[in-house]
Amino acid sequence: MTVLLLDGETVADNAPMNGLVDAIEAAFAAYERGDATMPAKSYVDLPQYDGDFRSMPAYLDAGDWDAAGVKWVNSHPHNGERHDLPTVMGTMIYSDPETAVPLSIMDGTALTTRRTGAAAAVATDHLAVEGASSLGLVGAGAQSHAQLDAIATVRPIDTVVVADADTERAQAFVDAVSDRFDARVGSIAEAAGCDVLSTVTPVRDPIVDADAVGAHTHINAIGADAPGKHELTDDLLAAAKLVLDDHTQCTHSGEVNVPYGTGRLTDADIHAELGEVVTGAAPGRTSADEVTVFDSTGLAIQDVAAARVVYERATAAGAGTSFDLLGLDSA
Amino acid sequence: MTVLLLDGETVADNAPMNGLVDAIEAAFAAYERGDATMPAKSYVDLPQYDGDFRSMPAYLDAGDWDAAGVKWVNSHPHNGERHDLPTVMGTMIYSDPETAVPLSIMDGTALTTRRTGAAAAVATDHLAVEGASSLGLVGAGAQSHAQLDAIATVRPIDTVVVADADTERAQAFVDAVSDRFDARVGSIAEAAGCDVLSTVTPVRDPIVDADAVGAHTHINAIGADAPGKHELTDDLLAAAKLVLDDHTQCTHSGEVNVPYGTGRLTDADIHAELGEVVTGAAPGRTSADEVTVFDSTGLAIQDVAAARVVYERATAAGAGTSFDLLGLDSA
Repeated sequence: MTVLLLDGETVADNAPMNGLVDAIEAAFAAYERGDATMPAKSYVDLPQYDGDFRSMPAYLDAGDWDAAGVKWVNSHPHNGERHDLPTVMGTMIYSDPETAVPLSIMDGTALTTRRTGAAAAVATDHLAVEGASSLGLVGAGAQSHAQLDAIATVRPIDTVVVADADTERAQAFVDAVSDRFDARVGSIAEAAGCDVLSTVTPVRDPIVDADAVGAHTHINAIGADAPGKHELTDDLLAAAKLVLDDHTQCTHSGEVNVPYGTGRLTDADIHAELGEVVTGAAPGRTSADEVTVFDSTGLAIQDVAAARVVYERATAAGAGTSFDLLGLDSA
Repeated sequence: MTVLLLDGETVADNAPMNGLVDAIEAAFAAYERGDATMPAKSYVDLPQYDGDFRSMPAYLDAGDWDAAGVKWVNSHPHNGERHDLPTVMGTMIYSDPETAVPLSIMDGTALTTRRTGAAAAVATDHLAVEGASSLGLVGAGAQSHAQLDAIATVRPIDTVVVADADTERAQAFVDAVSDRFDARVGSIAEAAGCDVLSTVTPVRDPIVDADAVGAHTHINAIGADAPGKHELTDDLLAAAKLVLDDHTQCTHSGEVNVPYGTGRLTDADIHAELGEVVTGAAPGRTSADEVTVFDSTGLAIQDVAAARVVYERATAAGAGTSFDLLGLDSA
């Protein structure tokens, strides 16, 4: 009984989006049904290093399967310039809830990237127009690749418009996906006019206005992950149907945190949590002409559900490295 | 930049008690000074499996060094009979607070055993009579070995009396330490008459009464780790000088939780937290004839401080197994 070590590359290789999207949808449904345990993220603030750690434990029972674990993840925004290291790094311990044996320890960075894309796909599946074929991306990094990979599993995406302040980065993204999609570099407004838009930037001054988006655009607002960050203008949010991954997290540090803090948005402006939409407790899209927004902050249940998919796939594929961390090998 | 994997044996080999006791004392001092960040343990209860997980993150700045990390630990009391597995297993992620890089992932079970012994030694150093030479142990498992190893670094222990309901287990303990100590199997009362007593049992009906202990016995009450558990009678606790590792944890699930819950003990009966005693904010022992009790529940700062000792020693010794979990090897 060893622990399976999975590095980032192995995690990515064993995180197929169709499997992840199903698992993440099941996780949100379990959360809504009350079949998940997810304590609030514990923050360890490190002002002396301009960073923080977060501990994200969870358990969920999806009916056919259950899963438990914890992700230990940081945000050190100056890591690049100071240490040539990533801003965010994660480590995931995935455990068997019945025996508590740690089954796998895996790179939590690749896991986070993939599960965040998968959650946007779940939201897109319930909120975008049925035949959505164009995807706009604002921001052209690893998360934008995950958004495209995931959303293409739930809608027949053929056209991709990529906006990034760094045009070379945007072009590199286009080059990387042009074998599979009709992809081009465009303005934010051109991206926002697509059937689906994912915004993946860390801005504090909104960059997408109500005028820019199409009449039926569904927006996945991914970038905001701290108080003060938001990508969409208050007017756009106020006019849209708002679906949150988690009310507490989103009003604290998600896309809606700034207007919610000022009172520009109230609970009356919030349509539902994603779990309610997934289980049918709240409707998804109800009109061909409405703008919808999914506010994604990222939940520990997503990590646990995604870790299970990765662990099961990696085990079946014989991938990863076994290590007898706890001396249970004879057990 | 790889992560150093340390299994239980390697952790134990690199957890020398003198180093641990110093580090744990520094951790309690930092906590008292406000130089530690320790969110409350997050519990993930699993009633369907009669168990739970706990996430224990912490950071502390001891002045000369700092350390961060998280321990993911469970309690599944039926694991033995049902799965031939330990009741408690732990996994520790030890991180560099400046960059957030995970430096080591180690077996948290051996770590917990050693750091718990070290905390009792810190308390014993401040609360036992100066020349304490006899140690009583109630319970004869791995933790009792850690108690003896640790306490012998702060007091000139030569005599050891071991009580255990399982006499064979007690004799095995005696046999294992008789090359270093004048050790014998004895009754609970004989153990409780020693200069220092450590109780390490999971009982819910107290087994040590006020009559049994010596006039100046210092007691480390280690066993209680959940509401309803206690090893010492209310009368003994009420008459003793009580020092807690943490007021919140001890009154919730430590040795004092039962009489505190019934009102038999109140805050007026509690002398101090260990951090106050270590820093001199509260006195330790003030009389040759007083009974003192240290209520140990175990804090995340202990894990982090102990993990640093183990990581530093293991690195210096070239022990452990390097693994490039996060793909930072080129960084």
